[in-house]
Amino acid sequence: MIKLNKNFLKLQDNYLFSEVNTKMRQYKEKNPNKKIINLGIGDVTRPIPKIIVETMKMACDEMKESATFRGYGPEQGYDFLKEKIIKYDYNIRGISLDLDEVFISDGSKCDVGNIVDLFAKENVVAITDPVYPVYLDTNIIAGRNTLKEEVTSNSSKLKQNNIKQEEHIAFELQEDTEKNKLSGIILMPCNKENNFIPQIPSKIPDIIYLCYPNNPTGTVLSKEELKKWVDYAKENESIILFDSAYEAYITEENIPHSIYEIEGAKEVAIEFRSFSKTAGFTGLRCAYTIVPKELKREIKLEERDSSSRNNTIVSVNKIWNRRHCTKFNGVSYITQRGAEAVYCEEAQKELKENIKYYLTNAKIIKEKFVNAGFNAYGGVNSPYVWLEVPKGKTSWEFFDDILEKYGIVGTPGSGFGPNGEGYFRLTGFGKREDAESLVI
Amino acid sequence: MIKLNKNFLKLQDNYLFSEVNTKMRQYKEKNPNKKIINLGIGDVTRPIPKIIVETMKMACDEMKESATFRGYGPEQGYDFLKEKIIKYDYNIRGISLDLDEVFISDGSKCDVGNIVDLFAKENVVAITDPVYPVYLDTNIIAGRNTLKEEVTSNSSKLKQNNIKQEEHIAFELQEDTEKNKLSGIILMPCNKENNFIPQIPSKIPDIIYLCYPNNPTGTVLSKEELKKWVDYAKENESIILFDSAYEAYITEENIPHSIYEIEGAKEVAIEFRSFSKTAGFTGLRCAYTIVPKELKREIKLEERDSSSRNNTIVSVNKIWNRRHCTKFNGVSYITQRGAEAVYCEEAQKELKENIKYYLTNAKIIKEKFVNAGFNAYGGVNSPYVWLEVPKGKTSWEFFDDILEKYGIVGTPGSGFGPNGEGYFRLTGFGKREDAESLVI
Repeated sequence: MIKLNKNFLKLQDNYLFSEVNTKMRQYKEKNPNKKIINLGIGDVTRPIPKIIVETMKMACDEMKESATFRGYGPEQGYDFLKEKIIKYDYNIRGISLDLDEVFISDGSKCDVGNIVDLFAKENVVAITDPVYPVYLDTNIIAGRNTLKEEVTSNSSKLKQNNIKQEEHIAFELQEDTEKNKLSGIILMPCNKENNFIPQIPSKIPDIIYLCYPNNPTGTVLSKEELKKWVDYAKENESIILFDSAYEAYITEENIPHSIYEIEGAKEVAIEFRSFSKTAGFTGLRCAYTIVPKELKREIKLEERDSSSRNNTIVSVNKIWNRRHCTKFNGVSYITQRGAEAVYCEEAQKELKENIKYYLTNAKIIKEKFVNAGFNAYGGVNSPYVWLEVPKGKTSWEFFDDILEKYGIVGTPGSGFGPNGEGYFRLTGFGKREDAESLVI
Repeated sequence: MIKLNKNFLKLQDNYLFSEVNTKMRQYKEKNPNKKIINLGIGDVTRPIPKIIVETMKMACDEMKESATFRGYGPEQGYDFLKEKIIKYDYNIRGISLDLDEVFISDGSKCDVGNIVDLFAKENVVAITDPVYPVYLDTNIIAGRNTLKEEVTSNSSKLKQNNIKQEEHIAFELQEDTEKNKLSGIILMPCNKENNFIPQIPSKIPDIIYLCYPNNPTGTVLSKEELKKWVDYAKENESIILFDSAYEAYITEENIPHSIYEIEGAKEVAIEFRSFSKTAGFTGLRCAYTIVPKELKREIKLEERDSSSRNNTIVSVNKIWNRRHCTKFNGVSYITQRGAEAVYCEEAQKELKENIKYYLTNAKIIKEKFVNAGFNAYGGVNSPYVWLEVPKGKTSWEFFDDILEKYGIVGTPGSGFGPNGEGYFRLTGFGKREDAESLVI
């Protein structure tokens, strides 16, 4: 009789955004004539630059002729795209990379989820809280920890006990009886009390998820702050999973676009990047992950294994490559040609305008709420504004509240983790006229 | 200190096809003037029908206008494509399916690899041998078993001991000490002695991989033979993972295109399908997986969990959906429009011609080898011909042999598993003139 993975039962049933969409649909049905201002959008809305579309159409045409038809491409992506990425996203910031350190994929969500395959169950994972839910959910699915209680009930308990400022171990840190290794998840609170900067946890984490510019808070880490994490990871032989999907939105100096701007980071960090938010590719599917060859770790084999092999130093690049080749078959050729065109001058000009458009929306939204007496964060190096919910209300209550009162849809902070409770995410991805028409 | 997933060390270092390519490249360097006839190709070579390309170009154009731009699509795929799949691939064979039983993805390799996330480690997995390597490798990565010895050494040992006809447990069947559940992999031999039909193993498997028409052997199961497996899975509450990526190549009657042609299969089987080999989409990336809502299994919770929940019946459809939404973000809109166009009359006509072209190549190749005194199987309902290697030679020796003698490249059977030793895969995916120019 088959045994299913019971860790799925430990996940919350509803994925955050589908719940928001359901509530929005219900509101529309009840109020067919009222206008909704959707500031909950986590997706780009500006179209793809024409030069990119024309390039993709040329790639389509190649597919209809025997001489130019392309079947399976390299699982890791075509060199023509990897070369552009290295030159324009890295070399320009003084970072050198080899072609086989770049892995093209169909989305950062996939990469961030799939990377957990590389790690043993017995690891302590540190995740900033609030957080993009995928980091947490994929670790739960992989069984790296056991939930003692539901995230939601945990969240409300935390709130009651007013322990928001302290780090907490949301999930049982388990000692694997057989192997005597610790396993579990530590949530690192990021809130206004600590300026949204995660503090080094008291237990040493083996895997550290950092996303900057951050989704959902819209805040950033300075080079100095990021350096602390790189040094810490080096000292403790941890690995940092650095998600910089929003780096193109950085407007201020001294904010790192890549973790590899920090000395030594290649020995401790994997970086996730995406064309989704930088080039409007959410419907086209293209992202990439950097796994430097300097990133190596020892695998300690237990006695029963050691007859055939000794402890061994493993290149993380090599095992990610093996995973990629075994469970993935490359990105659509047409999409890859489109992504290559992202780097041409004409596309760059238009894409920068798009990003400015979203950032200006975020600025307008933030100002309107601040002028109405709210505290708001982010929105400067990020399309996300992180609003503080008025005291006494949960973020889901606030959701219902402003939907009813102003027709505004946003995303309740508690959906991003216990420390998101009391906050609310607004995004600049909507239309300018919507941002301008806001009345609060 | 991070603990990497040491199961990666248990995989063979070289992926079969890269090894073939390396050897082919080396031969070309040594013999720059000799012609190579590549019968090792596992990829389509015929271009995409013009009507599909034109449809994709229209989808590209939609992306450049605000009014028609599409960002994130549904993770499970657009209804416009799912409706066509249900109508033309299933209803036509008397099989009804709901939209939420169809999951569009970027490749069957991904789906077949990712499905292992749904199952607990403690399962006995039965895999036909020889086999598409992904089934085996993804189970090893997931740690569902421990290799006692390398697959390769295992293979040669098997050969020496002449135990080819008997099922064998290639990997240690482990009893999980804590949970008292059996875990491991059983290889079910498919060879000329049993007409390439896997026999029911002596230990009851929980998960059964079946791929028909088969890669690499090119052989098929009749409805009666497949029914035995469906009945067996039902009786033992196992799950069948049915890979029918090559169903479009079936030419004979009484061969099931879908496992759901067998009564009761919806309660026991997940089916994987792909546009890769049926429509030439290997470079465009589109596949789909059917998870019927009838497929449900109980999750037995242990005592420590049961305080909060009782044992529970879980819909496999629901947990696959959760996995899909958490770790995947949908297929390129352009590709999905292309896949939709696959079902129009004009495309169907051309695609059927392409399949006939590949099948005719396979027929020619098979005949030439048979006329030269070889035993050969498959090639009738499949683009693959499964050649028996002359006695006394390993399949890698035969590879070197015919490359040197005739300039022919094929794929050594041993790369597909211990029972592939002694066989050799040839494919009809090359050019007609290459098949016709074969001299053996």
